[in-house]
Amino acid sequence: MPQPNHISKLGVPDPATLDDDLRAIWQKCVDKLGFVPNVFSTYSLKPQRLRNFMATYNEIMLSDSGLSKLEREMVAVVVSSANRCYYCLVAHGAAVRALSGDPELGEMMALNYRVAKLDRRQRAMLDYTWKLTTTPWLVDDADRAVLRKAGLTDHDIFDLSETIAFFNLSNRMATATDMMPNREYHRTNR
Amino acid sequence: MPQPNHISKLGVPDPATLDDDLRAIWQKCVDKLGFVPNVFSTYSLKPQRLRNFMATYNEIMLSDSGLSKLEREMVAVVVSSANRCYYCLVAHGAAVRALSGDPELGEMMALNYRVAKLDRRQRAMLDYTWKLTTTPWLVDDADRAVLRKAGLTDHDIFDLSETIAFFNLSNRMATATDMMPNREYHRTNR
Amino acid sequence: MPQPNHISKLGVPDPATLDDDLRAIWQKCVDKLGFVPNVFSTYSLKPQRLRNFMATYNEIMLSDSGLSKLEREMVAVVVSSANRCYYCLVAHGAAVRALSGDPELGEMMALNYRVAKLDRRQRAMLDYTWKLTTTPWLVDDADRAVLRKAGLTDHDIFDLSETIAFFNLSNRMATATDMMPNREYHRTNR
Amino acid sequence: MPQPNHISKLGVPDPATLDDDLRAIWQKCVDKLGFVPNVFSTYSLKPQRLRNFMATYNEIMLSDSGLSKLEREMVAVVVSSANRCYYCLVAHGAAVRALSGDPELGEMMALNYRVAKLDRRQRAMLDYTWKLTTTPWLVDDADRAVLRKAGLTDHDIFDLSETIAFFNLSNRMATATDMMPNREYHRTNR
Amino acid sequence: MPQPNHISKLGVPDPATLDDDLRAIWQKCVDKLGFVPNVFSTYSLKPQRLRNFMATYNEIMLSDSGLSKLEREMVAVVVSSANRCYYCLVAHGAAVRALSGDPELGEMMALNYRVAKLDRRQRAMLDYTWKLTTTPWLVDDADRAVLRKAGLTDHDIFDLSETIAFFNLSNRMATATDMMPNREYHRTNR
Amino acid sequence: MPQPNHISKLGVPDPATLDDDLRAIWQKCVDKLGFVPNVFSTYSLKPQRLRNFMATYNEIMLSDSGLSKLEREMVAVVVSSANRCYYCLVAHGAAVRALSGDPELGEMMALNYRVAKLDRRQRAMLDYTWKLTTTPWLVDDADRAVLRKAGLTDHDIFDLSETIAFFNLSNRMATATDMMPNREYHRTNR
Repeated sequence: MPQPNHISKLGVPDPATLDDDLRAIWQKCVDKLGFVPNVFSTYSLKPQRLRNFMATYNEIMLSDSGLSKLEREMVAVVVSSANRCYYCLVAHGAAVRALSGDPELGEMMALNYRVAKLDRRQRAMLDYTWKLTTTPWLVDDADRAVLRKAGLTDHDIFDLSETIAFFNLSNRMATATDMMPNREYHRTNR
Repeated sequence: MPQPNHISKLGVPDPATLDDDLRAIWQKCVDKLGFVPNVFSTYSLKPQRLRNFMATYNEIMLSDSGLSKLEREMVAVVVSSANRCYYCLVAHGAAVRALSGDPELGEMMALNYRVAKLDRRQRAMLDYTWKLTTTPWLVDDADRAVLRKAGLTDHDIFDLSETIAFFNLSNRMATATDMMPNREYHRTNR
Repeated sequence: MPQPNHISKLGVPDPATLDDDLRAIWQKCVDKLGFVPNVFSTYSLKPQRLRNFMATYNEIMLSDSGLSKLEREMVAVVVSSANRCYYCLVAHGAAVRALSGDPELGEMMALNYRVAKLDRRQRAMLDYTWKLTTTPWLVDDADRAVLRKAGLTDHDIFDLSETIAFFNLSNRMATATDMMPNREYHRTNR
Repeated sequence: MPQPNHISKLGVPDPATLDDDLRAIWQKCVDKLGFVPNVFSTYSLKPQRLRNFMATYNEIMLSDSGLSKLEREMVAVVVSSANRCYYCLVAHGAAVRALSGDPELGEMMALNYRVAKLDRRQRAMLDYTWKLTTTPWLVDDADRAVLRKAGLTDHDIFDLSETIAFFNLSNRMATATDMMPNREYHRTNR
Repeated sequence: MPQPNHISKLGVPDPATLDDDLRAIWQKCVDKLGFVPNVFSTYSLKPQRLRNFMATYNEIMLSDSGLSKLEREMVAVVVSSANRCYYCLVAHGAAVRALSGDPELGEMMALNYRVAKLDRRQRAMLDYTWKLTTTPWLVDDADRAVLRKAGLTDHDIFDLSETIAFFNLSNRMATATDMMPNREYHRTNR
Repeated sequence: MPQPNHISKLGVPDPATLDDDLRAIWQKCVDKLGFVPNVFSTYSLKPQRLRNFMATYNEIMLSDSGLSKLEREMVAVVVSSANRCYYCLVAHGAAVRALSGDPELGEMMALNYRVAKLDRRQRAMLDYTWKLTTTPWLVDDADRAVLRKAGLTDHDIFDLSETIAFFNLSNRMATATDMMPNREYHRTNR
């Protein structure tokens, strides 16, 4: 049976009807990636929310930080692994493969990060990622102390935590809308 | 032993050092509420992230929607109950009390929403809130069907889901920073 | 929608029909508290069980012990937090506020005790409370050793454990009968 | 390695030092059972609590009820199975064997009640037992409706719930004290 | 109500119709044990699978190993306790009683191994058994390090792990077929 | 940091030292697949166990059955998804891709089978797979009834259950030995 090729189960507006700023972004995506990520199409049902989502995403994932872009993508995938979010695992798994040049690292982050070879700082970051995602009520001073001992500054802990928090948001939007990842993600950087 | 009165465990900048737009918001908060919510102070460590957070928050909680403002606050509190987030339970519990004029409704949302008297649509919304928060991987078409049968449109499901998703973000930021709620929230609308 | 004002979903006898000893207690409650706690009314369906419940309650919560009355109420609230028992959280949350003079301490015990500032002995007591409530099968010698190291005697461990055990009983009776707390509890000592 | 033969890890007073009423009960136990149940010896550390425990136990397990004595013992064992309480599984497993004359029924209640052949009313009672023990916060009107449909009156639901609640207490006291069951229980009614 | 006496809910072929090699094994079982274990009868629905099951079972449980036969049976019962598998708890609980000469040890393994008096090596083995059974995804180098420190060689860890893995298989086959244990197991070595 | 390229953390014998029958299998693997699967190398530490493992595997996955080979591989991957077993997800995910010619189906089985488009029979099989893997103690007659209603015969239920049971074994062996999948699996049939 052919697998689903819908974008979202809550309906997607015709891109031609979107505001100019969004249509410009659509064009930029096509130029750069070859396609418009389905998360943008899904969110275009509520244009202002899409704008906020993109602003938040860009700031968290692309601005300067003590965490490298690869590390932020690794965190994104581990959150999505805990929440078993299909869209985010496929899209951000591809990002880990692209940024690391290591296809297996992407698979490990998606399937069980504990099998990966990581330095102590990265392992502490991912253990914290799992805990803040699955049992946030148990996180307290002792967890912050572990991160500091592994070398993270308070700004790093802020950035790490917001990355975790953000993917706990986007995982739930992807699941709630049954968002399908663009097929292009599957094949890149294998 | 006196309880903690810090704002965030990751450090908070002197408000006098903030950009003009943020200082204007601080002033508006003092004028309107009598205080600056600690979530803003906590986020001011990274000013651009604070701006994105406020834009997202205002759009989700205050813009037009098929869900009333009270319903969105009820959802906020039930997410925070599942995640046992102290800050959000205190601050948004106060909002439920204020908007409903029913102090017990706020307590019920915070402690166990299943004891509240709710119409079928609200109960369906809160059962979905609990499930998308605690076991997002189990959510599928059957859950959307229940919501539709209870009268929600696709736009309502989008708004409901994004409210749930957003508090799954903010609960984790509050827990990660050990954010304390402003003491004013405790006493209002009891 | 107005919230429920029933006492118990399993029926409550007319107080005028109760035995003399119970009617005397009803009168004493009215004189002292201004109302009869709904847990007594609920249990009056089976008068002998009410008598046993009151005797057990008074011995555990009010007799001499190495644990202060406030500490026993804190334990009561943390058990009820783990079990999300609305009646006990409201009634004993009020008791923590009354005995401590600290309204926030009551909220912290009800919502997530890990955010409270506690000395090592109290934190050890509450961590044990959580564990014996949620995963009793994992409790063994190592847990008793932690309590002893934090300064508890064997009599203290007995009293602490019986307080935890008792609220695991009363939480389940309150939930089973959908017992509503008297509204007076909400407003006191805020 | 020989298995433990202590009574309680929190110390047990010399029976000769107990008050007359308790020594009379000790004698009655020896006359009737051949031994003093270790739960009594454990609780004799605090004599008034022992008296309350015995009064509560006798009322719940032995007084007139719409639930037979065997059914109450079955409930006791299923609670103890969920909580994996060694003392109560051994002592009350023996009671199920004794009252039913069916050694396998005792084993099934202790190991997994779902394999037993039960009529609809008993299966509904034990499913409710499992739920009120393991996830009390999820119990609401729908659960009471199932019990009523299976033929239970409100008094039956009260008695059933208090039996469940009581063993949630006694399981935790047995675990907290590492109470060992008297060896006689193992061999009876096999 | 008499308890079930079926063998398997998926049908059992007439033993007279089995191939010669299997009928010879049936005869050997009757000669040695007095009965054919119901697991063999259940599996005889697919004769080749029965042969593989017996070969695997014999190699794991009976061949030379750094783990004694009693230890392997203890592991079998603890896996079955975690999975609450009635058949395996009854059949292998009897084996622990038989091999140890200690009826209480069998009960402890079945009900909650943490109450047993065990040397450090056995406790480490059973803690690992519980973890690899209930949360295999959390097992990593740190767990192997604990076992090595407790004296296990790599061959011992292999044997221990395969015993755990095998009963995770057989527990699921017994549950899937609602396999009933032969009644003889209940009464032996009490 | 380069990812691990070990085979097993419990040591692997030199293939040249293996018995003739195993060396012949090694050669056949190289001829057919281009490599020896690391699960064989890992198991070669105990040659007889390897022989049993291969016999069991071949019978379950390759013999005639009411379940297609693709369906058995889908079940294998869903078990491994529940247990988050890296080796089996990579190796059997590749098999789903190869047998179905649909790379996305493999990803869906590994990441969250609930997003896949499945007919009612396959969805019932995979829901049962998840339940028998994660909460085997809850499986009873009602679950077998659902499978029968979806069209499975008793032989189909046997085969389905044994496939589930077998991967609950092999997932735990892979995790226990930290078995790494051969790198070839990652790239095939993308």
